[in-house]
Amino acid sequence: MGEIAFVAVDWGTTSFRLWAMDADGGVISERHGERGMSTLKPVDFEAVLEESLTALKIHAKVPVVICGMAGAAQGWVEAPYVDLPTRLETIPTYAIQVPLARRDVRILPGLAQRDAGMPDVMRGEETLLLGAALEKGVSGMVCLPGTHSKWVRIEASIVTGFATSMTGEIFDLLAHKSTLAHFICAPLGNLSDNPAFADALKEAIHSPEKILQLLFSVRATPLVMGAKNAANMAARLSGLLIGLEIAGMGQSTGDQVTLISGGVLAQIYARAFDIAGIEPRLLSADEMARAGLLHAARLLWPEQLNRKHDT
Amino acid sequence: MGEIAFVAVDWGTTSFRLWAMDADGGVISERHGERGMSTLKPVDFEAVLEESLTALKIHAKVPVVICGMAGAAQGWVEAPYVDLPTRLETIPTYAIQVPLARRDVRILPGLAQRDAGMPDVMRGEETLLLGAALEKGVSGMVCLPGTHSKWVRIEASIVTGFATSMTGEIFDLLAHKSTLAHFICAPLGNLSDNPAFADALKEAIHSPEKILQLLFSVRATPLVMGAKNAANMAARLSGLLIGLEIAGMGQSTGDQVTLISGGVLAQIYARAFDIAGIEPRLLSADEMARAGLLHAARLLWPEQLNRKHDT
Repeated sequence: MGEIAFVAVDWGTTSFRLWAMDADGGVISERHGERGMSTLKPVDFEAVLEESLTALKIHAKVPVVICGMAGAAQGWVEAPYVDLPTRLETIPTYAIQVPLARRDVRILPGLAQRDAGMPDVMRGEETLLLGAALEKGVSGMVCLPGTHSKWVRIEASIVTGFATSMTGEIFDLLAHKSTLAHFICAPLGNLSDNPAFADALKEAIHSPEKILQLLFSVRATPLVMGAKNAANMAARLSGLLIGLEIAGMGQSTGDQVTLISGGVLAQIYARAFDIAGIEPRLLSADEMARAGLLHAARLLWPEQLNRKHDT
Repeated sequence: MGEIAFVAVDWGTTSFRLWAMDADGGVISERHGERGMSTLKPVDFEAVLEESLTALKIHAKVPVVICGMAGAAQGWVEAPYVDLPTRLETIPTYAIQVPLARRDVRILPGLAQRDAGMPDVMRGEETLLLGAALEKGVSGMVCLPGTHSKWVRIEASIVTGFATSMTGEIFDLLAHKSTLAHFICAPLGNLSDNPAFADALKEAIHSPEKILQLLFSVRATPLVMGAKNAANMAARLSGLLIGLEIAGMGQSTGDQVTLISGGVLAQIYARAFDIAGIEPRLLSADEMARAGLLHAARLLWPEQLNRKHDT
């Protein structure tokens, strides 16, 4: 394993992941933290970052490259959106250097869709896509599921269009803060093996226009058909919303979609794709983030990161 | 104006409306209160009711008929659902008398759909429908918009099927508790005159399967197209969800729908129907509630309520 050449950070809304990496992209050490963008003021970011770097004993000369919400207008320093169509390899050239920081810190921009279809934005996913395109040659339709799922069309490493589906956020609101909450049994976890998940997924794909009524069935079914049905209602809610997401993206049987995700969410979406007849190619979100940040680091600090390769 | 013959109460989840009425259905006095079912334990209902009756100086011999959530399992006394198909005039025969109450109090049941389509329930709306069928001869499709909008098919005063759309609840969750909330400018009020309402309504009717993506545009549009668009986003959110509701109910240009509602909500839905090419026949929700409760009272206490007619 080499020495630490740079630090890669995926800094999201609710948490961050930080990796100390060698020049070949090997992980030397890592930290996951809860201090996401939404919990921080601009002046807080540097202290949170340096606290992690100190804990990992990382020298002040080691540079840091960040993707995600740290570059939002309400983040650390704004890295303005790059407009579509965007060649993924060029994204790091739009990185912003944090002014007056103790070390060299660069924040990668997000992408904005202004003209090609519905207005939309992403921050963070573009770096995973960069990793997927360079490392795995990904093209075609890519799905990055989550609070705000992104569905992205890539052609020859150019992002030509994308759409955001509020699936995860609406699931959380309905499961925890709505009149359906009473019928959602914890723990949630992987609900996709429950037959109610598959049934609901198919119902939503077949009749997406009825979603406002289908959702109420999560409440009405236990009331009308008996409380024994309550145990299935979390799986039903999940299946309805993921089915609606798939329907909205115009996916159908036989389509191939690259799925960039991890953990339970990856399992749920892989199962959903399977039920919908879509062939998923699963890639690890963490690995793709590191691959994208490695590419960015090599572009930003060519001397430092290519030195080892030359010797 | 006659003397007080009975008291009519529409007791919902978040509030109640109470009318002291004469035997002809004339309103002698009224009270609106905030103590809806969700704020009360079973033992609290009688005190809340008697407080209003005392304030209106109503004698203990005057009976009370109630519709709505007071009859839910978690309400005052459960009035079990009556199954479809249901002849509206027969609903009062299933009323429950509150045991050990200081006065004669009856609670009307709701309706349940067990076999005819998706499981569904209503409580309170059936009494408005009873009023509409008897007083105005309503048949065909009826829409009662709200937190949980009800769309009901009536044929010859028989309820043959209905569906619930979570439109109002999902609007409130997204407008106040989601990542869209930042882009929703108060005050809400009647948003339907904003052209963004009409555009969004048509988009949702045209592409209901894309709703999870259309909803995210409420956030992405101001970010991408400039903050001046933020003022329209509440209207856009409202239009998207009501458009989806209309699409889900299979309504299209030229259809006639009876709209039972009141206040700002009646204006918004009448405008939405107009944009969608649906002809609304607007009836007052309060008037229909009183008409339904009057019919119930006449069935429940024939001597007391028909005495005046006989003389």
